[in-house]
Amino acid sequence: MSKDKQFVTEITPQGEDFSRWYIDVIKKAELMDYSPVRGCIVFRPEGFEIWEHIKDELDRKFKETGHRNAYFPMFIPESFFQKEKEHVEGFNPELPWVTEAGGEKLEERLAIRPTSETIIGHMYSKWIQSYRDLPVLINQWANVVRWEKRTLPFLRTTEFLWQEGHTAHETEEEARQETNAMLDIYTEFAENFLAIPVIVGQKTPSEKFAGAVDTYSIEAMMKDGRAVQAGTSHFLGTNFAVAFDIKFLDRENTQQYAHTTSWGVSTRLLGALIMVHGDDRGLVLPPKVAPTQVIMIPIGPAKTREQVIGRVDELYAELKRAGIRVKVDDRSDVSPGWKFNEYEMRGVPLRLELGPRDMENGQVVLVSRITGEKRIVEQVNLTAEIQRMLVEIQADMLERAKQFRADHSHSVETLDEMKAMMEEKRGFVLAGWCGSEACERQVKEETGATSRNIPFQPAEKKTKCLVCEEKAAHTVVFARAY
Amino acid sequence: MSKDKQFVTEITPQGEDFSRWYIDVIKKAELMDYSPVRGCIVFRPEGFEIWEHIKDELDRKFKETGHRNAYFPMFIPESFFQKEKEHVEGFNPELPWVTEAGGEKLEERLAIRPTSETIIGHMYSKWIQSYRDLPVLINQWANVVRWEKRTLPFLRTTEFLWQEGHTAHETEEEARQETNAMLDIYTEFAENFLAIPVIVGQKTPSEKFAGAVDTYSIEAMMKDGRAVQAGTSHFLGTNFAVAFDIKFLDRENTQQYAHTTSWGVSTRLLGALIMVHGDDRGLVLPPKVAPTQVIMIPIGPAKTREQVIGRVDELYAELKRAGIRVKVDDRSDVSPGWKFNEYEMRGVPLRLELGPRDMENGQVVLVSRITGEKRIVEQVNLTAEIQRMLVEIQADMLERAKQFRADHSHSVETLDEMKAMMEEKRGFVLAGWCGSEACERQVKEETGATSRNIPFQPAEKKTKCLVCEEKAAHTVVFARAY
Repeated sequence: MSKDKQFVTEITPQGEDFSRWYIDVIKKAELMDYSPVRGCIVFRPEGFEIWEHIKDELDRKFKETGHRNAYFPMFIPESFFQKEKEHVEGFNPELPWVTEAGGEKLEERLAIRPTSETIIGHMYSKWIQSYRDLPVLINQWANVVRWEKRTLPFLRTTEFLWQEGHTAHETEEEARQETNAMLDIYTEFAENFLAIPVIVGQKTPSEKFAGAVDTYSIEAMMKDGRAVQAGTSHFLGTNFAVAFDIKFLDRENTQQYAHTTSWGVSTRLLGALIMVHGDDRGLVLPPKVAPTQVIMIPIGPAKTREQVIGRVDELYAELKRAGIRVKVDDRSDVSPGWKFNEYEMRGVPLRLELGPRDMENGQVVLVSRITGEKRIVEQVNLTAEIQRMLVEIQADMLERAKQFRADHSHSVETLDEMKAMMEEKRGFVLAGWCGSEACERQVKEETGATSRNIPFQPAEKKTKCLVCEEKAAHTVVFARAY
Repeated sequence: MSKDKQFVTEITPQGEDFSRWYIDVIKKAELMDYSPVRGCIVFRPEGFEIWEHIKDELDRKFKETGHRNAYFPMFIPESFFQKEKEHVEGFNPELPWVTEAGGEKLEERLAIRPTSETIIGHMYSKWIQSYRDLPVLINQWANVVRWEKRTLPFLRTTEFLWQEGHTAHETEEEARQETNAMLDIYTEFAENFLAIPVIVGQKTPSEKFAGAVDTYSIEAMMKDGRAVQAGTSHFLGTNFAVAFDIKFLDRENTQQYAHTTSWGVSTRLLGALIMVHGDDRGLVLPPKVAPTQVIMIPIGPAKTREQVIGRVDELYAELKRAGIRVKVDDRSDVSPGWKFNEYEMRGVPLRLELGPRDMENGQVVLVSRITGEKRIVEQVNLTAEIQRMLVEIQADMLERAKQFRADHSHSVETLDEMKAMMEEKRGFVLAGWCGSEACERQVKEETGATSRNIPFQPAEKKTKCLVCEEKAAHTVVFARAY
């Protein structure tokens, strides 16, 4: 801790350099550290615990909806990658290869999984024989590797952690229902757990998962106006079933290929959380994912110190019993003011101050991380008041993020307008698109923005393509993206 | 499911061929499947859920004792492995190497972690500067890889899952306390959660972890008399601190090396669970780890079927609400008798039968997987009765395993006695040992048994070495081991 005493004053303001702000904050809040391996980071306890809360919540939702966890090998034989043409083209450039092991050269190179459709497809073909074996609803929490050229902590790292759901169904309709149901779970989770509003929609063909028929995504807006794809759900049709021979005898006793899906979110959610909510004082964490929800700081002179700490410890025990994630910082070698800054920087949603005057009055002071609002609260009502404030903060954070997104959402008719918009303003831009890859590519080349998705519920329906001015087949959200 | 209908009759009896019994059971109970990658298995949902219960319980214990989780990269630069001499010698033969990635040959080969002391040591040297930064108490849940020559599902697989705790301390005393405290946690966990009694003790120097000063282990006896090392805790002294420069300014303002520990258990615990408790009818799972604790089977003729199932569903809801892991099998295309066999094979601790007669009497029949005992229980007391029976079964399983171990524990004075014992009987053998590697090696060569550990509480104290007949320095448990 001693080393970190100067940190709070050293955060680059967001307005000055958003990228430097991001790196300053995640290092200083001890969420991560760089590792000696290119593009790989260490998830330190403060960062990893956020992932644990994410994982617990999603895992509960997956199990509630009938999914079970399993674990498949991380090594994938090279020949497996060749079986689905689009898949191999999409992932081959990013694969690391194990070529030697146990002192010998391997006969067949083994890739480390960038995703597991191939090895899971192979296993499903063994397990699925009859319609009675369907649906198969399996999820895996795992590490995956993609050898990326440019990396950025959490948002794009060589090795990262994620969950990947892989399901197989009798009919296209059922598989499409699953694809949508998981997208709904991600949407609800992003908004109500992470306080991140998202645009829900379908990816354009050029942006879909390598091997999917259709890819759907949720897209979040960062405070620099750029987008983060926060979760994806893929309808794979029979593409992987054909490649891996996942066949079953249907109810009419004829052989059919299964329809499969896959869906995932990853540790890039941590990056999104930080960039959606953080401010110039540091992290701001929604109560539902914050490792520490309440930091208790005793204040006042040395002579009352022991008494104050005694009372703080009693209240701590009470909050702890109520299931609140609470900590006490009773160090005497740093000032209360220093501690205030420190825990603001670390994004703790609520600060509790207790001094001798509060002792006399049977009160405490609660301070919100997002508004700075101070509330004097009776100690007898403490648990209930804190629970109420945490709920308020969570809701308020979602509203603020929605407001920010509304303030940075635009609409254009032409490519020139889009160019001007991307230069002058940050954010998401709604525009019409004819459906041709050429027009989509031209937007990217001239503005740096990519199609994020075709929203299910666009703010307005566009009628003309912003590039060729032909009839719009879709209304698309464009943005620069991480 | 349809494919599996014949399985229950196809389990090789333990007495005929224990290895075949093991493979039959884990395949038929759908705990695992072989993968196309040599020595790697798939953990199917029924197997993986056992691991999830193990993980949840241990994770809770680790956190209660002040540890936090983190995640470190799985790639380890080759140069890191060279820094601790014993460590590199111990692990080098088992490493897989990534030599190419992203379409290019790597400048430095990357090993995939067989364990993470090296990369974690490197990071700790950055994080630890002062005694104020100590202790560091971190755990990691991760996949690891060891390229083994002979593999066996769960017990020895190329890739496996585990947790590895890595701590750093100011003093040797504190680090030794940590080493012991974690060994205690493993012991308590093995006995009270897995119902596996263990021998707690210290490894001989030839059997200790590569790079440790002292290794401690818990050793369990399988039903074929062989041992499984079920968990280890290592006092690493300053070995890794010196190799990776983990230094701190102590309270007297002088530079000191930190004292570190590491400790782990892995998915081999699943193999131990199965081999300790299983019988000729299949798996037997302790209630605390069983994915399904109670299977409910409606019985009786078609005309009362609907009514019976209605009542079963009500009782199911009640048990579920009480937190019991319960399932209903109400399929009409397989007989109750087939279901009885099926769930016995799958090791479900308790079966509930409900038929029309039971309906009339307001009763159910409960059948224990381990004793076969049937109890008629009033429906009004059902939840409490089931909870009581699950506790009884858990306790009974531990007692039975202890009795089995007592029946297969022996004591010898000489190598000849040991040889005879290993040929005639199975199990653990207590013997005196002078402390020389030569004598230990001779035991192994002539009997196939290895020293398991030097128990903290041996049944008796031996005075002479079984090989050289010199004064015994230690009393050692020997056994053939997985």
